[in-house]
Amino acid sequence: MSGLKSPVSSLSFEVVAAQGEARAALLTTRRGVIETPVFMPVGTAGTVKGIRFEALESPELDARIILGNTYHLWLRPGIETIKACGGLHKFIGWDRAMLTDSGGFQVWSLGALRKITEEGTEFRSHVDGSLCFLSPEISMEVQAALGAEIAMAFDECAPGEATYDEARRSMELTLRWAKRSREAHELLQKERGSSPTPGEGADADETSALPARQALFGIIQGASHLDLRRESLDRTAEIGFDGYAIGGLSVGEEKHVMMEVIEDIAPRMPADKPRYLMGVGTPEDLIDAVARGVDMFDCVLPTRNGRNGQAFTSRGKLNIKNARYAVDERPLDESCECSVCHRHSRAFLRHLYLSGEMLASILLTHHNLAFFLDTMRRVRQAIRSVQFAKFQREYTEQLKSGLES
Amino acid sequence: MSGLKSPVSSLSFEVVAAQGEARAALLTTRRGVIETPVFMPVGTAGTVKGIRFEALESPELDARIILGNTYHLWLRPGIETIKACGGLHKFIGWDRAMLTDSGGFQVWSLGALRKITEEGTEFRSHVDGSLCFLSPEISMEVQAALGAEIAMAFDECAPGEATYDEARRSMELTLRWAKRSREAHELLQKERGSSPTPGEGADADETSALPARQALFGIIQGASHLDLRRESLDRTAEIGFDGYAIGGLSVGEEKHVMMEVIEDIAPRMPADKPRYLMGVGTPEDLIDAVARGVDMFDCVLPTRNGRNGQAFTSRGKLNIKNARYAVDERPLDESCECSVCHRHSRAFLRHLYLSGEMLASILLTHHNLAFFLDTMRRVRQAIRSVQFAKFQREYTEQLKSGLES
Repeated sequence: MSGLKSPVSSLSFEVVAAQGEARAALLTTRRGVIETPVFMPVGTAGTVKGIRFEALESPELDARIILGNTYHLWLRPGIETIKACGGLHKFIGWDRAMLTDSGGFQVWSLGALRKITEEGTEFRSHVDGSLCFLSPEISMEVQAALGAEIAMAFDECAPGEATYDEARRSMELTLRWAKRSREAHELLQKERGSSPTPGEGADADETSALPARQALFGIIQGASHLDLRRESLDRTAEIGFDGYAIGGLSVGEEKHVMMEVIEDIAPRMPADKPRYLMGVGTPEDLIDAVARGVDMFDCVLPTRNGRNGQAFTSRGKLNIKNARYAVDERPLDESCECSVCHRHSRAFLRHLYLSGEMLASILLTHHNLAFFLDTMRRVRQAIRSVQFAKFQREYTEQLKSGLES
Repeated sequence: MSGLKSPVSSLSFEVVAAQGEARAALLTTRRGVIETPVFMPVGTAGTVKGIRFEALESPELDARIILGNTYHLWLRPGIETIKACGGLHKFIGWDRAMLTDSGGFQVWSLGALRKITEEGTEFRSHVDGSLCFLSPEISMEVQAALGAEIAMAFDECAPGEATYDEARRSMELTLRWAKRSREAHELLQKERGSSPTPGEGADADETSALPARQALFGIIQGASHLDLRRESLDRTAEIGFDGYAIGGLSVGEEKHVMMEVIEDIAPRMPADKPRYLMGVGTPEDLIDAVARGVDMFDCVLPTRNGRNGQAFTSRGKLNIKNARYAVDERPLDESCECSVCHRHSRAFLRHLYLSGEMLASILLTHHNLAFFLDTMRRVRQAIRSVQFAKFQREYTEQLKSGLES
């Protein structure tokens, strides 16, 4: 099952503990060591919305890797600007690891898609309406210029309710694009070998002796059809990538369908490579997926829901707009050690939210990211101390106990 | 000139150095020592917009006192909520000193004023359009409940271009209201003596032996008419306050008119009490006013302009939207030591601003506040080392040299 023609990896991935399918590992990049299972905050346009990098780096959050969106950055400020400013890390001022998606999902989800051809996808920019074209080759070129430690193959995402035929057609296209992505990526890495990408070198954290080569992950598609998913996995692994992602989930399908796919596919993914579940999910989803062998996650929930007044807590979701919090002097989560819960009451946060104050978004985003990142820290500790099953049971019970109990 | 019947002050104010009219002093409150001249960031609705309290408290900014707006907090969340949550400090989670304005200026500036009578002002809430009434007595009651270290007398603000007769009528009303403010405040402080205001006591920084009594500042009006201003000052000082403010400036009059008023009035204000210039101004304005004897300032410029993409720098204002900054890797201000200038380029900040990212406001607000607070720190050092005139000359020259030189 391990990749044929596997390139010399620029990542090292070492499983250090396992319990059932759950595993704790060290993912080492040229910009530091990432302990997995890991949650990656989403930094769409070069910023994790509403939070400063200093907070992401603080011991309280300690995000070791963030995600950047190729689609958004390609459209604005554009690759020439980012290149002129020394690559994405230097442009935004973030020295830790990054992963960039391929842009395929955004073309699909932002809905301005015009046409999919064998060559690539034609769509209208959500920024200025101009006609754009993205292909595996262009995505690889853009991602190489961005210079994240991990790039993603360019894929097509079928909707959750895709029929078998639709899902197969989409999966086959994704496989052809995966091969083209891999080939284009290899060429770019060779070019990079002879002329270093800006932003690498002196600025990089060269604690490891890993090659400067950007890693590339392949993406498994196939909607809710398990045989397609398995075929997608096998044929993607044959192409050979530095890691593998499950794409096309949390896109409209029911939750039990999502979990069936994860349960079937994650344990079959190459055990010696990171397994990344894209765009998922709630804290429960993360823990359920860890139990099935997933190592990496990204999701907009903590940031987006924070901006919309929703806090994630150890006892479930809290809607700060609710009148019951008007004079509630308790923190968002009485079990939370974050700086927001240490300092501010639900009453104050509700007031900020209802007054349209930016600080509401800032504080709820901070708490939610602290909660997600702390949950993953506890997940890692539980796996390392062979307490994961107990942790999962207790965590889930507490979530279900509710805020008002 | 010093106040008759002056109450036992809850503040101590000690001038420690002077050069010309400029003076450096220590203003001691029950929540810490404030070195003056001081700039107070504006925290309208219980938050200095776009910045966390942790940043305001950091050594980089070290804001010792912030302003809260009585009008805004009274309308939302309302005094009952703030009382139920233990007073304003406890409600918002800020342990350092605060000053609340009286609400008079907001009634005027937010423009929903219905009617001014001898009794007070009737207006429509900017939150829900309901009919509201504010008077000296109500303002004092609200400010006592908020529990800031410094409250302001309830005044009426005449427009900058007010005629002599209009300005006199307004000034006379403000004087009658000042007397009523003082009387209502005294009564409330006596009540407070017998039953401590929530939020005081255990939570307060009781490093000083000052009484728990809230301080009250009087406000000098009279528009641009110097004889009215002098009369307003004399008669306000006769009533006797813990400090004195110049109100009704930066409300539409020309800058030279504002400076004439400050130049004439500030040096005549009681020398043994803090002198506060309300709602002013740019860094140059602050320094010009310090040179004329002013100790305290508040202004929305660093926060509001930050949100609108304008940075204050040692070489003048910088509009981050400008295309010339598209690939400019320099910080906002090459002389600035703040964490934003340390980390982020103009190119990145411009990208954030054009992308509508909240982080643009967060970072520009932080830089602008750092710049204002650092300017005041340098002003204090200059006065203490008898270098103020030199400092003022050099600071102004650098401002005028421009960003592109």
